[in-house]
Amino acid sequence: MMRFSVLLFSLLYTTMVSAATAAAGDNRPLLHYTPEKGWMNDPNGLFYDKKADLWHIYFQYNPHDPFWNQPLYWGHATSKDLTTWNHEKLAISPDRDDEGIFSGSIVIDHNNTSGFFDDSIDPDQRVVAIYTNNADIQTQDLAYSLDGGYTFTKFHNNPVLDVNSTQFRDPKVFWHQHSNQWIMVVVKSQEYKVQIFGSPDLKNWKFHSNFTAGYPGFQFECPGLIEIPITGTNESKWVMFIAINPGSPVGGSTNQYFIGDFDGVEFKPIDHFTRFVDLGKDYYALQTFSDVEKADGVLAIAWASNWQYANNVPTKEWRSSLSLTRNFSLDYVAANPESKLLTLIQTPVFQTDVAKTLEKKNITLSANDSIDFEADSGVFEFELKFKAINALAHSDLANLDLYISSADGKESIRFGYDPVGQSFYLDRSNTPYKNPYFTGQLSAYVEPSSDGQYKIYGVVDRNIIELYFNDGVTAMTNTFFMSEGNTPSRAQLKTNFDDEFYIESISFNELSV
Amino acid sequence: MMRFSVLLFSLLYTTMVSAATAAAGDNRPLLHYTPEKGWMNDPNGLFYDKKADLWHIYFQYNPHDPFWNQPLYWGHATSKDLTTWNHEKLAISPDRDDEGIFSGSIVIDHNNTSGFFDDSIDPDQRVVAIYTNNADIQTQDLAYSLDGGYTFTKFHNNPVLDVNSTQFRDPKVFWHQHSNQWIMVVVKSQEYKVQIFGSPDLKNWKFHSNFTAGYPGFQFECPGLIEIPITGTNESKWVMFIAINPGSPVGGSTNQYFIGDFDGVEFKPIDHFTRFVDLGKDYYALQTFSDVEKADGVLAIAWASNWQYANNVPTKEWRSSLSLTRNFSLDYVAANPESKLLTLIQTPVFQTDVAKTLEKKNITLSANDSIDFEADSGVFEFELKFKAINALAHSDLANLDLYISSADGKESIRFGYDPVGQSFYLDRSNTPYKNPYFTGQLSAYVEPSSDGQYKIYGVVDRNIIELYFNDGVTAMTNTFFMSEGNTPSRAQLKTNFDDEFYIESISFNELSV
Repeated sequence: MMRFSVLLFSLLYTTMVSAATAAAGDNRPLLHYTPEKGWMNDPNGLFYDKKADLWHIYFQYNPHDPFWNQPLYWGHATSKDLTTWNHEKLAISPDRDDEGIFSGSIVIDHNNTSGFFDDSIDPDQRVVAIYTNNADIQTQDLAYSLDGGYTFTKFHNNPVLDVNSTQFRDPKVFWHQHSNQWIMVVVKSQEYKVQIFGSPDLKNWKFHSNFTAGYPGFQFECPGLIEIPITGTNESKWVMFIAINPGSPVGGSTNQYFIGDFDGVEFKPIDHFTRFVDLGKDYYALQTFSDVEKADGVLAIAWASNWQYANNVPTKEWRSSLSLTRNFSLDYVAANPESKLLTLIQTPVFQTDVAKTLEKKNITLSANDSIDFEADSGVFEFELKFKAINALAHSDLANLDLYISSADGKESIRFGYDPVGQSFYLDRSNTPYKNPYFTGQLSAYVEPSSDGQYKIYGVVDRNIIELYFNDGVTAMTNTFFMSEGNTPSRAQLKTNFDDEFYIESISFNELSV
Repeated sequence: MMRFSVLLFSLLYTTMVSAATAAAGDNRPLLHYTPEKGWMNDPNGLFYDKKADLWHIYFQYNPHDPFWNQPLYWGHATSKDLTTWNHEKLAISPDRDDEGIFSGSIVIDHNNTSGFFDDSIDPDQRVVAIYTNNADIQTQDLAYSLDGGYTFTKFHNNPVLDVNSTQFRDPKVFWHQHSNQWIMVVVKSQEYKVQIFGSPDLKNWKFHSNFTAGYPGFQFECPGLIEIPITGTNESKWVMFIAINPGSPVGGSTNQYFIGDFDGVEFKPIDHFTRFVDLGKDYYALQTFSDVEKADGVLAIAWASNWQYANNVPTKEWRSSLSLTRNFSLDYVAANPESKLLTLIQTPVFQTDVAKTLEKKNITLSANDSIDFEADSGVFEFELKFKAINALAHSDLANLDLYISSADGKESIRFGYDPVGQSFYLDRSNTPYKNPYFTGQLSAYVEPSSDGQYKIYGVVDRNIIELYFNDGVTAMTNTFFMSEGNTPSRAQLKTNFDDEFYIESISFNELSV
């Protein structure tokens, strides 16, 4: 298979097919997966097929309307490169119109523990989906595929896990080598419990333990548990992901994570900190891929929207995109001058050609300077390294701003930093979509390097911006909605004060998808 | 002393003096304490003087400029009713211009454990301040008052606690009856540790334990630890408060709390949840009052601003207000249909006359209805009880809105609810003050009562709105800044859809301060 590099400005220049979805004139993102039409929410069943060298994603899908409603299906798409996706046919369908095939995961049952397969099915293509059937109650059900993940047969003895609850969902299953069993994490959503079950065969599940922590919000959803390496060591830790919705402190939907150890029975956190995966408003229900080869790391995709406004945003024929694929690692990161905290490091993974590029270095920015870049496609990446070099009078703001605007400059988002506020901000209020839940101003505290440097990598893709601070120590993902026909095609770096910011480097690449 | 009622629409009609600060035409709040001029941040040294029946507050104060700078003093104010405050002279001053009398607390040393007092000083007026001296390093120092809290003498043997750190501050001290000692909670700020110390005499401190939890942010500040009764029981729990700044998920400054038990040595939380005290952007560094009589409850005041923009907001001659005093209790509260969580209940405490009132009941609101109230002073309270009575198509927003606007209607804040977004929102973007950290849209998830009712109590005071949901289960405090001369003098309740909201009651009271 291909090896995916982390693309923080070490772009691979490969030849790419155009995305099947690129044609639409509705500000549809090109690097981020969107359904052709209809409604999408959580990513489900993510896995890598080693035999076909192919990535599969499934997702919560209502093909009939551009808003959430039952019947709800698993939609499906495939990709050779995690960048360009082919829309596939519906993968799993409900039996009734008032039913939903809710979120879940896929495992490759190499050793046919389930008995669903015979020798005609390659061990790398023994695809079993474990999902929540949402009807009168929520149960965990199985479906298996004999054609590598395109069509599925439901297990005749479903459900495999039923606790007679309407709030019991989102199983994420993986093979735990150390204890020689399948492990499921699943939530008793409104009891704020991640429940851990074990099974020899995916059909019979035994309860092991509960895990409860973090900011409770209204309910838990979409748990995850995966071993993640600590960079620069031979060690690793287990990371528990818990999504909450509604009730994010920032409003609506968000993901939390906890770092700890897992022995096949219990998850024991190393501390009692609550950490958020992404400080933007549009990153929810993340799931990691199954069966990724070790050299490719730990890969995850999230839903790039927020239940507060997902059903309402002005994309009309389709609604919601998925995030970029991210590679997760762990590292000890300075959270302030006195503490290093073990932290999830997130870096985006994709491959594109570069259509156009600009780089500037070593500039002490003046108030009448600006550094300008144009990308007609509205799809570009940037990397900015800078230092704040002066202290200001306390009541002034000295802004280093990257304005990303429509061609006429009338609609824009503003990304920047001010040494007094001590945080990065993203302001998406100068765009026409208005909704009192659509938070205009987001911000993220980021600790600079010991010599005061900040480094920001950003991907702008039509109606979404993903920001990665200091090589992925902090991430912030936000959608924005310009008028029909407008794309974020201009970028302009500037400041309102002379000699406040030293730009070590700023570079832009327009990306050809 | 007077008994302070919780004023959730059980107003006491008493005669009041006008606030000394009411004259200014700069949208200065009247119910919230503001300094006459200069800069204020954290409330410090809050205590009740039983002998004088007088409430004392101190605060971080720079009298020279309307922004933070050293030398930094303890400012001082007093009140008979927690509503109208008298500005007092500077209480504690630094010895050098590059020094700050940083945050701390006051205890009444009834039994003269410190030896600072003799029989001439009433036991209820043996005032000892424990604060952080911020010079080359941060140490914990003492100062005592022989005149009931107006002037202070620094202890000749300061510091009383020095660990040779530049990040060691904000001592909150109280007498712990059970273990017969003074307890100090203080932060090793950038090590994310609340440290608990014990002392027989306020002068000699012994380390007991550390507590670390929650969302770490950049650093911990202003810890608090106090026993709080559980409503309707004879039980109580201890609540640990930790302020973080910067790094609130909502941006900048926020307060977290943890519920547990305290044995005089260690604080042990009952769970590993992280809870936020207030979901707005302007509630930080809360402190509880010392020596409050049991019948008055547990009373606290916070700083009603956010370090992201506190130095920059357009009040010019003075900057920042304190929050209203709040009474804290604990109760088991439905967080969703399946879980009750022990939760901090917050209710405001103040006393005013009512100048003007309006009440409407039992209205199914139509899109062309509105319920209007005018309060020229820009100081009013409201209480709204409603149910969302219809489900809507999923892509529409049905907003129940309370617009609070200037007399000409051109500037406004918008408070409301939409059943699809499932949260309350506060939108302060239609006001002229712009700053990319000044988040326009805030929101709060609130679980309705079992029959679907929501109840909101709000206090609007010139440039600040405090919101209390369902009798104080959730609070949200936000400042807003209209143009010079404009006050939030009009309130209008309306909706954009017919028959979506049943208004059980809406009432407004203009308040005379």
